[in-house]
Amino acid sequence: MAEAPKFLRPVTAPAADVGLAVTFERPLTLDCGRNLFPVTVAYKTYGVLNADKSNAILICHALTGDQFVASDHPVTGKPGWWTIMVGPGKPIDTDRFFVICSNVIGGCMGSTGPAENDPETGKPYGLAFPLVTIRDMVRAQAMLVEHLGISQLLAVVGGSMGGMQALQWAASYPERVRAVMPIACAARHSAQNIAFHEVGRQAIMADPDWKNGEYQQQGTTPSKGLAVARMAAHITYVSEEALQRKFGRSLQNREALSFQFAPDFQIESYLHYQGLSFVDRFDANSYLYITRAMDYFDLAADYDGHLASAFGADAPRFCIISFTSDWLFPTAENKRVAHALNAVAANVSFVEIKTDKGHDAFLLDEPEMFGTVRGFLNAVADS
Amino acid sequence: MAEAPKFLRPVTAPAADVGLAVTFERPLTLDCGRNLFPVTVAYKTYGVLNADKSNAILICHALTGDQFVASDHPVTGKPGWWTIMVGPGKPIDTDRFFVICSNVIGGCMGSTGPAENDPETGKPYGLAFPLVTIRDMVRAQAMLVEHLGISQLLAVVGGSMGGMQALQWAASYPERVRAVMPIACAARHSAQNIAFHEVGRQAIMADPDWKNGEYQQQGTTPSKGLAVARMAAHITYVSEEALQRKFGRSLQNREALSFQFAPDFQIESYLHYQGLSFVDRFDANSYLYITRAMDYFDLAADYDGHLASAFGADAPRFCIISFTSDWLFPTAENKRVAHALNAVAANVSFVEIKTDKGHDAFLLDEPEMFGTVRGFLNAVADS
Repeated sequence: MAEAPKFLRPVTAPAADVGLAVTFERPLTLDCGRNLFPVTVAYKTYGVLNADKSNAILICHALTGDQFVASDHPVTGKPGWWTIMVGPGKPIDTDRFFVICSNVIGGCMGSTGPAENDPETGKPYGLAFPLVTIRDMVRAQAMLVEHLGISQLLAVVGGSMGGMQALQWAASYPERVRAVMPIACAARHSAQNIAFHEVGRQAIMADPDWKNGEYQQQGTTPSKGLAVARMAAHITYVSEEALQRKFGRSLQNREALSFQFAPDFQIESYLHYQGLSFVDRFDANSYLYITRAMDYFDLAADYDGHLASAFGADAPRFCIISFTSDWLFPTAENKRVAHALNAVAANVSFVEIKTDKGHDAFLLDEPEMFGTVRGFLNAVADS
Repeated sequence: MAEAPKFLRPVTAPAADVGLAVTFERPLTLDCGRNLFPVTVAYKTYGVLNADKSNAILICHALTGDQFVASDHPVTGKPGWWTIMVGPGKPIDTDRFFVICSNVIGGCMGSTGPAENDPETGKPYGLAFPLVTIRDMVRAQAMLVEHLGISQLLAVVGGSMGGMQALQWAASYPERVRAVMPIACAARHSAQNIAFHEVGRQAIMADPDWKNGEYQQQGTTPSKGLAVARMAAHITYVSEEALQRKFGRSLQNREALSFQFAPDFQIESYLHYQGLSFVDRFDANSYLYITRAMDYFDLAADYDGHLASAFGADAPRFCIISFTSDWLFPTAENKRVAHALNAVAANVSFVEIKTDKGHDAFLLDEPEMFGTVRGFLNAVADS
């Protein structure tokens, strides 16, 4: 456990009310070889840690998520991103479990990221921030869990990029987690997924207000580029069927085509809203860094291309969930993980949920997912 | 045939060598209600029109195509976009057939479009250009065909947006075309397809060099926005399987990840190339107008929502081709057209070709497509 912190020092949360935060006094050595120092991890907890500290569940957030999994977002004022899943009596029941959710490093909700000041220059990092990986994010989470005095998590749960982190936990710290639930994810990012991310990055970098990443110093915000990036990405979060069902070719507040370029179709207005509402709460450089971390993710690559080698005889118990209409992380990619786990005789269950809601199904009202999550976590807790 | 031109006057081709061009002395009344005047249609022909003018095939190009279907492109110097299909001895055999291909109105290769001068102001149209539809494009083609003295085409053939035009020909001018081959298209643009186009348009409009469409007067070019639009669109032209097969996670000219934002992966370099090479040959405003025309396309909507009503007892003979891995215009959409034609007892054959090449398969080496096209056109000609 080479990266365990030597000293721990809780600090006041930065500017926005990001919940709790801890700044470690020891640098975090990253996959790129650079040391990140200081490292702050902002987080939220829900429920109560029991006496023997055996009921802690770490929830890992997706690309644009944050630690506000089950409480109002301090910037938007909107409910947390997984209130449907996490809370008293919910599938991840905070009456029974102690839930931790931390902002990933590279993020923009209080954990160290490109918007923070670089101690070497006293100015925001911008592109001087080192590229972080999913494994680096998990290293920082492990430091937080240790800081909280928890030697073993009951479970790590996450969807999309959160699922990547759950997989990485099983590979990096099998002795520190009893169970892992990767939802709607993959052990590697595909060429198509990299392509969509690169389009988003190019849209941001094409915005003259991005200013080579130094927009904070120059008082600008690359909102237009970031909105385009979000719009492109958002299409991949929804299935073609769901878009057709929800929007089809319906017009927005009009009886007939306008023969103008303003939004005619509801799907256009919906996308505009997705783009515009996103830029108010997310940092463009963080978007670059986190998409890059996802693109770099290829768990097998760390084990000479053998995914099964990422997991040993001490692998935690697994429950993998995929969705039939998820074309970003299709069932086949989730099955690859299950097969690799089977190859090392791990305890793994795999559930493919039939839905037309696409990748974002993991955030939505999917009763079969709720039942699976509730049942699996209770079974692990009772075992 | 209300929109038939009263007078026809061939003119010299504009600036670049766009091949042949005709400027009509009668305005073209558009679906938006406005009159377009003057209207120039730039075109190329291949092969020889026979004495009874019965061997003419109109090829309709896709979104970013042009009239250079089988001859070198005057701007890029590259071979025409369908040389694999059109030429002496090719499936569309110019030893037997007289092939016509015209640039769509709204385009940027010599036909009247937003880059041309608005006679009312003497300045380039820009956004003052009226929104055109697929039906408007076909109206202009019909004027060209009449200008060439051809009362009935042997066939109209097109892929993607070209297929939409082929469908529109069958609906608008059934008596003027004996056979129609729509390839990899649909009778309507889906919500997902509209969404991707809107992302592209927003990327262009977000580019400060776009200058509300007046970039010609202001001496700028919205290259970055147009490149992002092209990159996003290009992903939809290829299947996930093909991207995985061709690129996977292979690195570009390097042994290991760079931990930088420059392209690491081959798929990134490939996308960059697609974006950069596109802006040299295409006009950003044309991209806005033509994507909008595709989004507006919904053939059934012109017939109270009944697609079958678009076709009558006099429907031309049909051969519809789709590709299994085309997720932009999936087989199901092509089948909808076939079913509508079945409902009016039209002569229709439908071929779904198994390939992993995605939407762009219609431009690529697909022997089954070549055999189908060759066989169908010869059968029509011989009947």
